[in-house]
Amino acid sequence: MINIGVIGYGYWGPNLVRNFSDIPGAQVTMVSDFKPELLAKVQTRYPKINLTTDCRDIFSDPKIDAVAIATPVSTHFNLALAALQAGKHVLVEKPMTVSSEQAMRLIDEAQKRNLVLMVDHTFVYTGAVRKMRDLVSTNALGDIYYYDSVRVNLGLFQHDVNVIWDLAVHDLSIMSYVLPSQPYAVSATGMSHVPGGPENIAYLTLFFEGNLMAHIHVNWLAPVKVRRTLIGGSQKMIVFDDLEPSEKLKIYDKGITLNGNTESLYQMLIGYRTGDMWAPHLDMTEALRTEGLHFINCIKTGDRPITDGEAGLQVVRILEAATQSMKKQGELIELNLAKVAA
Amino acid sequence: MINIGVIGYGYWGPNLVRNFSDIPGAQVTMVSDFKPELLAKVQTRYPKINLTTDCRDIFSDPKIDAVAIATPVSTHFNLALAALQAGKHVLVEKPMTVSSEQAMRLIDEAQKRNLVLMVDHTFVYTGAVRKMRDLVSTNALGDIYYYDSVRVNLGLFQHDVNVIWDLAVHDLSIMSYVLPSQPYAVSATGMSHVPGGPENIAYLTLFFEGNLMAHIHVNWLAPVKVRRTLIGGSQKMIVFDDLEPSEKLKIYDKGITLNGNTESLYQMLIGYRTGDMWAPHLDMTEALRTEGLHFINCIKTGDRPITDGEAGLQVVRILEAATQSMKKQGELIELNLAKVAA
Amino acid sequence: MINIGVIGYGYWGPNLVRNFSDIPGAQVTMVSDFKPELLAKVQTRYPKINLTTDCRDIFSDPKIDAVAIATPVSTHFNLALAALQAGKHVLVEKPMTVSSEQAMRLIDEAQKRNLVLMVDHTFVYTGAVRKMRDLVSTNALGDIYYYDSVRVNLGLFQHDVNVIWDLAVHDLSIMSYVLPSQPYAVSATGMSHVPGGPENIAYLTLFFEGNLMAHIHVNWLAPVKVRRTLIGGSQKMIVFDDLEPSEKLKIYDKGITLNGNTESLYQMLIGYRTGDMWAPHLDMTEALRTEGLHFINCIKTGDRPITDGEAGLQVVRILEAATQSMKKQGELIELNLAKVAA
Amino acid sequence: MINIGVIGYGYWGPNLVRNFSDIPGAQVTMVSDFKPELLAKVQTRYPKINLTTDCRDIFSDPKIDAVAIATPVSTHFNLALAALQAGKHVLVEKPMTVSSEQAMRLIDEAQKRNLVLMVDHTFVYTGAVRKMRDLVSTNALGDIYYYDSVRVNLGLFQHDVNVIWDLAVHDLSIMSYVLPSQPYAVSATGMSHVPGGPENIAYLTLFFEGNLMAHIHVNWLAPVKVRRTLIGGSQKMIVFDDLEPSEKLKIYDKGITLNGNTESLYQMLIGYRTGDMWAPHLDMTEALRTEGLHFINCIKTGDRPITDGEAGLQVVRILEAATQSMKKQGELIELNLAKVAA
Repeated sequence: MINIGVIGYGYWGPNLVRNFSDIPGAQVTMVSDFKPELLAKVQTRYPKINLTTDCRDIFSDPKIDAVAIATPVSTHFNLALAALQAGKHVLVEKPMTVSSEQAMRLIDEAQKRNLVLMVDHTFVYTGAVRKMRDLVSTNALGDIYYYDSVRVNLGLFQHDVNVIWDLAVHDLSIMSYVLPSQPYAVSATGMSHVPGGPENIAYLTLFFEGNLMAHIHVNWLAPVKVRRTLIGGSQKMIVFDDLEPSEKLKIYDKGITLNGNTESLYQMLIGYRTGDMWAPHLDMTEALRTEGLHFINCIKTGDRPITDGEAGLQVVRILEAATQSMKKQGELIELNLAKVAA
Repeated sequence: MINIGVIGYGYWGPNLVRNFSDIPGAQVTMVSDFKPELLAKVQTRYPKINLTTDCRDIFSDPKIDAVAIATPVSTHFNLALAALQAGKHVLVEKPMTVSSEQAMRLIDEAQKRNLVLMVDHTFVYTGAVRKMRDLVSTNALGDIYYYDSVRVNLGLFQHDVNVIWDLAVHDLSIMSYVLPSQPYAVSATGMSHVPGGPENIAYLTLFFEGNLMAHIHVNWLAPVKVRRTLIGGSQKMIVFDDLEPSEKLKIYDKGITLNGNTESLYQMLIGYRTGDMWAPHLDMTEALRTEGLHFINCIKTGDRPITDGEAGLQVVRILEAATQSMKKQGELIELNLAKVAA
Repeated sequence: MINIGVIGYGYWGPNLVRNFSDIPGAQVTMVSDFKPELLAKVQTRYPKINLTTDCRDIFSDPKIDAVAIATPVSTHFNLALAALQAGKHVLVEKPMTVSSEQAMRLIDEAQKRNLVLMVDHTFVYTGAVRKMRDLVSTNALGDIYYYDSVRVNLGLFQHDVNVIWDLAVHDLSIMSYVLPSQPYAVSATGMSHVPGGPENIAYLTLFFEGNLMAHIHVNWLAPVKVRRTLIGGSQKMIVFDDLEPSEKLKIYDKGITLNGNTESLYQMLIGYRTGDMWAPHLDMTEALRTEGLHFINCIKTGDRPITDGEAGLQVVRILEAATQSMKKQGELIELNLAKVAA
Repeated sequence: MINIGVIGYGYWGPNLVRNFSDIPGAQVTMVSDFKPELLAKVQTRYPKINLTTDCRDIFSDPKIDAVAIATPVSTHFNLALAALQAGKHVLVEKPMTVSSEQAMRLIDEAQKRNLVLMVDHTFVYTGAVRKMRDLVSTNALGDIYYYDSVRVNLGLFQHDVNVIWDLAVHDLSIMSYVLPSQPYAVSATGMSHVPGGPENIAYLTLFFEGNLMAHIHVNWLAPVKVRRTLIGGSQKMIVFDDLEPSEKLKIYDKGITLNGNTESLYQMLIGYRTGDMWAPHLDMTEALRTEGLHFINCIKTGDRPITDGEAGLQVVRILEAATQSMKKQGELIELNLAKVAA
């Protein structure tokens, strides 16, 4: 039985507690939050869980094997580091940290102590994203040409991070899992419409080697909610609409064909190919359950999680670079996504 | 009666002939195209129109007052210049020319000869775009925060111009008419997926003074057709979906409110406001008819057209700068959109 | 403080307990269900509520003022009658009873004892339906021509009632609240596709005096979920799509105009009028909260509930007649919806 | 070369002329219409076609092999009979005639003279409907449970026929082609909202042997346009949305499974099965071209058309019975769809 302590019972913490309470071989034994009224909710629903307003009680409890951290991003580093130093496995919310330096430090600490360090890139554990990875990795789409995502709605404005750190982080974690390679540079633009506030609208272009590019549009101030991703391949193309109650993923047998003498573009005829559309049935298991099972399994086997510290670091590096590019109105910022650990 | 010669009877020419044939006070008297099989179509439908494979017959015909040019963009300059030099008023397809130098030269020629020079920015004459301009100019949306447009589909790949010149030109002409100011710089990214071909996917960010920005996504290789524009304002927001058979324009009484002590962001509470949505009935007159009437009227009165040479030039300047930025992976390119003529 | 006992903690009971627990002036003091595992859920979430597997404990508890009944429809009559006879106010799930005789008996019992008898026609308490009633009653739509509703999806097949009693009951309760008059006859058709099972697809036409008619399509075996109602009026028309996350209600300024000499149809010109569309902001309060507040208020004031026993009876009478008509392949069955009590 | 005369150049006639002008082995040699201004349009577009205001010129022209009739339904019988009596093959608009007696008379006349008599049930020749027939006839859907169609919009009100004859005729012709059997009875309801006018809203239920039923909702007074058909089968289900620009046909691998002891419904567990959705690529050839080719081919080979006089008669019989049922508020009317000729 893996005993888990959960830090933070605000927006996401309740989902962690609910899922880990229901996973075979795991149990939540302690929850900390500095707001007593939130702890009272835990008490009502899970009377057997120990409660504390001081997360150090979790670190010092020798019966706790692993810590799940669901607090504001600025606190991730200190809490995760303390947990690792106390010998606990760690699952930390996304974004992993506020800087790549912090992320590298955590990876180093976990590796040194042989502990599992996992980042809660939840989308990676959805049926839709896993299906997209299957399709890309089995070459069902052909060469991947582009990834284009729109993630906009009205609210929730964050005070401490810009819209890239809040919303684009989802797409970056999906891309990291689905696409065949990592980007080498980013150009981003954006703007704030709240005086003194972080940017609430942003556009990121990511450049990859070969003929792949990616673009992400995120916006806290849109009149309608959109969650739509297009993936273009040489053979097939995907539309992933996460707001659809079913048929979230549609695969189009569409594309172009190049005919004739390819030495000269002007002699080349471009043909348009349109075939069937297919919406595969998706595994509808709650992503956090799949993810929780994976976390527990990694603790037991020592396997490296799919969304390990390296995956978290790569996303943070892109968030840093994108924010830097945005301040300079689209200036190209090189990325260095080489792994830090063997 | 204004006599019109039409050059080019390919994709758009038939629409020009059909509309000008139906406008009171105008008639099409000659059509030129170098393909006899296209002229045969004119003959069948409009037996009274004179036909020629040599457009110089149009320029030299003293009874022709105005020339409408619907040929590939690379030919616009020479044809429009010859028409102006022959003393004809000119309506030229968009984009106006392949360079701003050419556009300035045409403006100069038309001004010198006191001739009407109009660019066929068709969208400007649709009921939806005119309604958007009304809403913006009467301040119904409040301060304008952003213009965001997606214009993607499968095909038609052009051989001579990239997707910006083919599709973004529509949004640039709409923005020029609807938005309260002109952009000062552009950052663009894009890519070609056809070896040796022009870019088939592109993203443009346009920067304006104050807190307005614009973004355009154009793509010839998308699995679905999308024609959707969001305009965000401080009071209201618009969704313009041109693929909707009716209710193309939806106006949302949505936004944020800033409360509290605005000296400190952290003490400021952001509220979310949601009210009615409203889809105004739109004038469904065919845009080209409205535009044709305007062209004829400008010829008669000497009025400056809404989409005059200056408007065409401004769009070409942005297209040039965006292409330049795209080659340099998003590098910011300054725009100089000052008027060239009094 | 009104003390409430809830009978049945299956699908709907948890919603009753949650809402009444949160309504000022009311509290749930006892829950009964014959399944101990469901009572265990109550215990976890609401440790202060008394639990019992015998609902007679609720009837015999002198501190309990009102009983909410969320059990299978076949048990409604006995439970509601016992509750009334024990002097408790009653809120009973829809359909009120399995026969109009039973419904009349309950109305009689409640009236005799001066107790509140309310039927949980939940839709009547939604913002969308209340807005529709406002629009109809203020004559904003003009004369009402038709009510047309489609309520289809895959599942849940019921064993004891047909699809009319399960799904059409929603539309009948909405119509009873929104439309200006009551139907005088019904013609229904339907079929079962499960050997020996109740009808899983059905179509009801309801006839009203004047030129109003209504139609309801319900289906447990549809590939897609649809919840869409059209209301046609002489001035305006409504589309109510309950699956829309927002803009559930759209009001179209559309219709026909009759011109010319109306003595002869052939000399009459019918014109088509198309104006704005408008989606009013709706009160998004959970319907069951609004309904619970109304129930508590009626207990305190003695007011008659909007969805009183009479409203429940009228719906049951239509359900009975529709089932009878369906057995006879559409035979017209007269309705007698006169009130039973003063 | 088959020479064709077209009678009527109003709404549909131009489509007939355009398609037959483009079909190999056929040509339109004469068009008649009693309005000279419509004939002038023919003259402009097709200068070689002979024109007449007297359709008897078509019947008496020995060079004309076949006549296409696109006039108001009340004139179909006289015109088709005269054409047949003049020895011409006939393609007549739907509905075939205003009564089944007339339809039988035409079938008889054509059979006696060994002439092709075809009814223009255009939908039968669309890629979507042909694909539906393929799916049904190859048993891909399993047993067919229901056909449900909604065909509503604002306008066009007809003066001489009710909405059943105008709109339901489409569904009846599709059903006749797609479904495995013919209905044996109909129950219909409907209403007029124009004083003295024909019914503008109607609902038809059609009963078949076995556990198949069909329902059609047609309405000239709806705020939105809907063209949506559901076909439910024991294995798969179809949604056909004719307003979708692509993916008009979606096939859902959904349904129910019956488990356990089927002797007792209460011991039977109903399971819900959800698999992939699939939108097959459809042949997008204009239906009228496919139909025209079929007509010409039948003339040459003597083959019986898919939509022959019998098919037209069956639809007229249902229209007659549905109208009769509607007058009697849903009374069940038996159908006799046995063939009249060997």
